[in-house]
Amino acid sequence: MKKLVLAALWSLIAVIVVCAAVTFAADRDASVLMQTDRDFAKATAARGIDGWMEFMAPNAVLLGAEPIVGLDQIRAAMAKELGTPNSHLTWEPTKAEFIGDGNTGYTVGRFESRWTDQAGNPKVRKGAYMTTWQRQKDGSWKVVGDIGSPDPQ
Amino acid sequence: MKKLVLAALWSLIAVIVVCAAVTFAADRDASVLMQTDRDFAKATAARGIDGWMEFMAPNAVLLGAEPIVGLDQIRAAMAKELGTPNSHLTWEPTKAEFIGDGNTGYTVGRFESRWTDQAGNPKVRKGAYMTTWQRQKDGSWKVVGDIGSPDPQ
Repeated sequence: MKKLVLAALWSLIAVIVVCAAVTFAADRDASVLMQTDRDFAKATAARGIDGWMEFMAPNAVLLGAEPIVGLDQIRAAMAKELGTPNSHLTWEPTKAEFIGDGNTGYTVGRFESRWTDQAGNPKVRKGAYMTTWQRQKDGSWKVVGDIGSPDPQ
Repeated sequence: MKKLVLAALWSLIAVIVVCAAVTFAADRDASVLMQTDRDFAKATAARGIDGWMEFMAPNAVLLGAEPIVGLDQIRAAMAKELGTPNSHLTWEPTKAEFIGDGNTGYTVGRFESRWTDQAGNPKVRKGAYMTTWQRQKDGSWKVVGDIGSPDPQ
């Protein structure tokens, strides 16, 4: 019986150590992407469209039913969304990973968009998103692709 | 000593069981995306540009230094790549996940592109890729975004 308890204890410790190591490794690897995505959210909350645009790569695309390509087009589309009365677009990454050699990666997270409609009613739309990042020549990380997946209404 | 061996054995078994369970759960969740990405690779190997195009959503974008938007543009660009002498573009997903409500997801994997250059030399380029998928109205999964991250030469 004592042996069994000891074995169970050892097993538990081994599982905890391995799980912690895996979690730590994954987090450490792409923590720069988690932080950049949080900075992106903060910049947008603080400076609206100008904050948003600071994180767009020259070759950024907003994926969706009608893909939006080019900085001028992205600025126009997002200025409209962020300029809606009482608009608040916030998000928080839940996960980040590099792919390949570490110059490309992605973040996945949850977003929340709040605004007031023309009748004065408060509206909210929530969902998941995925952002694709590429390291720029100056070492900074910028958005090259972004897609939202709104929750069912 | 016997106790130590037994404890080590139990620990190993516990780690293997937990890792297998985690891997199985992740795979089961998005196995449809893994399978669709493998079908995409098979179709391209078998039918070239026509196989590739079967998996493109109407709103697909090939992300990169110059994003390629629209089915006609994608057909032209990929026909050129797949039409290079002795061209073989193969890939294998290593991971798939849904984001949000399950109508959007992504696969990550490794690709290998082989061809013969103008001087007749065999060439190879390998790297990682990430493909973004959306469920279509007919229930099929199609590509809405694709990005490659070649290994350093």
